[in-house]
Formats: sequence, C-alpha cells, structure tokens
Amino acid sequence: MITVALPKGALLEESIRLFQKIGLDFSAFNDSKNRALQIVDPTNTARALLVRALDVPVYVEYGQAQLGIVGYDVLREKTPKVADLADLQFGYCRLSVAVKSDSNYQESRSLPAHARVASKFVQCAREHFHGLDLPVEIVPLYGSVELGPITGMSEAIVDLVSTGRTLKENGLVEIDLLFESTAHLIAHPLSYRLDRGDLSHYCDQLRELTPQQQSVTS
Amino acid sequence: MITVALPKGALLEESIRLFQKIGLDFSAFNDSKNRALQIVDPTNTARALLVRALDVPVYVEYGQAQLGIVGYDVLREKTPKVADLADLQFGYCRLSVAVKSDSNYQESRSLPAHARVASKFVQCAREHFHGLDLPVEIVPLYGSVELGPITGMSEAIVDLVSTGRTLKENGLVEIDLLFESTAHLIAHPLSYRLDRGDLSHYCDQLRELTPQQQSVTS
Repeated sequence: MITVALPKGALLEESIRLFQKIGLDFSAFNDSKNRALQIVDPTNTARALLVRALDVPVYVEYGQAQLGIVGYDVLREKTPKVADLADLQFGYCRLSVAVKSDSNYQESRSLPAHARVASKFVQCAREHFHGLDLPVEIVPLYGSVELGPITGMSEAIVDLVSTGRTLKENGLVEIDLLFESTAHLIAHPLSYRLDRGDLSHYCDQLRELTPQQQSVTS
Repeated sequence: MITVALPKGALLEESIRLFQKIGLDFSAFNDSKNRALQIVDPTNTARALLVRALDVPVYVEYGQAQLGIVGYDVLREKTPKVADLADLQFGYCRLSVAVKSDSNYQESRSLPAHARVASKFVQCAREHFHGLDLPVEIVPLYGSVELGPITGMSEAIVDLVSTGRTLKENGLVEIDLLFESTAHLIAHPLSYRLDRGDLSHYCDQLRELTPQQQSVTS
C-alpha cells in the first residue's frame, strides 16, 4: 500500500481533489472535526498522512511516504533529497522582496549594505542577497513577517505573496521577485525508481491531469 | 511608550489578563475578528505586538519590544539574548521524551545508538542526548511530532506535553523529562538596565502578581 503525505493549509483541498480524480479518496481530512493524522482510502489501496507543509518532504525523504504534495517554495527553502516529479499548477504564489511603500528602495540592490531583512525563508533570502553580492542581516521569523518593517526592525522582508492583500493592508510594496511557486508532486527517489506499490502508475495519472507540466528531477 | 510582545496561542489569554491587572488593556487581541498585529492600550501608555511565540524573543532581542511574554521552552530552544526576569507561573507544560507504549524503552538511555528522534525542539533534543553520550539522529519536524513513531520514521520523540491527551490518543508514553516550562517575562537587556519608559515599574508590578517567582537573568 502506498502512502501519500498531504500538506495542511492552503494546498490541502486541491490536493484531495486531485487524488479523488485518480480514484483515491482522502476527503475525510476535509472534515473540520477530523483529528486523525493518517487515514486509509475507502478502497483500501492507499494511506494518507496529514502533516505540516514543511514536514511533507521529511516524510517523503525518509520513505515513510512514497508520494507527497508540497509547494515549490518549501523545496527551494529546504532542498530535501526527493524526486520533484511534476508541477501540479495550483496554489500559485511568489516569493518576493517587499519594503514600506513610502521608502525609496526600488529594487533589492538599492537596499543599504547590512540592511535587515526579516523572513521565514532564511535560506532563499540569504541566497538572493548573496547572488547580488549585497551583505544583509537576515532576521529569522516564524509568522507575520510584515511586522518587521512596520516596527522598524527590518528595512525589507522576503515573503510569500499570493493576492498581495496582506502587503497592501500593511503599507508594503513588492520590489523584487525571487521565484514563483506552485504545488509540486514529489516522490521518494528509491521507491520511485523501483516502482514500489505501482507508484509510476499513480504518478503518470496525476501528471496527465496537469497539462503543460514541467517535470524536473532533483 | 513601551512596547510589549505577546505570544499567539495558548499563553495569550492569560498574558492579556496579567497586563490588565497592571492597568494595560490589550484585550482587543482576544477578539477573533481582530486582524491588527499591533495595538495601543486605551490609556495610550503602551503598545502591544501580537506575534508567534517563537518570534517574541526576536522582537525583544532587537529592542522593537522592551517586554515580552514567552514560554521557557522557547528560551531554552532559541537561547535569545534577552533578560529572563520572572517565572509568571502559568502555561505549565513539560518537554519530554516519549516512545510507543508497546516498545521496551524505559528511559532515554535504553534507546539504541543512532535511533531516530523526531522533534520540533532540535537543540534541546540534541543537548539531552549529547549529555547522555548517546548518538541519535534528530529528525526536525514542524508539527504533529507524534506521527514519527506511528509511521515508523523515528523510535522516539521529544515534545511538549501538557495534559498528555495527545500522547495517549496516539499510543505513546513519556519515558523521560527534559524540563518543565511556564510563561516567563523577558525584557530587552539594555532598555531594562536604562529603565527606559519606566520599565522597572511595570516589571515590579508583574512580579508582585506572581508569588514565589524565581527571578533569573540570562
């Protein structure tokens, strides 16, 4: 029986819908009263784990799940040793640099050397500024990163933006884009190569459901 | 005007009640419809930031908040450069090692060398096993750590336990205690030493409200 790691939060509903289309029903996770962290689909052919988005690649890397769905942003930040099989083309957002709208910074390069940048994406932020040869101090935060510039703790933030509503409400504007992110299908490399539990069959079906997908293996 | 960093989650309600007792009303954060991340109390004497528990010491360390309330567990895991002024004696929980109840492990020492230990408290877990001279592999997770042993990914977990209900529901038992944790009052060291914004006045009042408190400065 294969095990699938599904991410709590924004990508869950669409992930469940996708697996329903290939005959695996994990909709019990949609029930707000559900407290179970693992369920078996009614046809008894696959198990699903409900975990934090950041934990999806951990379960897949350790082989406790053979498949997983996770945002590309998590793959970029954590660089787990998993096979990145397909862009599933939902859950669009982008990782951007933002500053206060009344500041004079037009792009990342215009930030002063040793500026403070608050972010949940410490590695991505570091790489971005390193690539620009601009030394900055990354302030690691776990939530509400927009408070960084508001309180004066940081000149800029690196954060995920989807509609842009949160930025606008907090008087911030995007000045640079690091990358765009969507949900990706990932697999445990060894299980995928050995085609354990008919894995390639499921992967092919999921790929067919997402036209123009770009397949990359890392 | 002083700024206070308050933690979202389990410690929020009691933190708000504590500040109300010394005349600072931040109860607007209790409103479930509230979207503001910073508010000023009605008497216009103090500001409060509503942030993730893990971010409280960051705002205090950088001096964006002069005071903060945070669990001792966060102070142990993150070792921020803040003054640890008082044990506020609410929000009790403990950081424990737990294993499957049908396993033979009676204490941390009985785990096999190179066992896997899943935890959100990577530093604390590492220290604990290092102190026992037992080499283990820490698997960093962000949530639902109890899934580690259930899925077979790890032999043990290091996690916060309050009532023990979650452990029991998942067939796990505690075998060792790392430390007990309660809410602590922390301050920006320099602001506290210089008594900016009459900080010591507020701290003394908060201390008086918590009998038998142990004061430690780190």
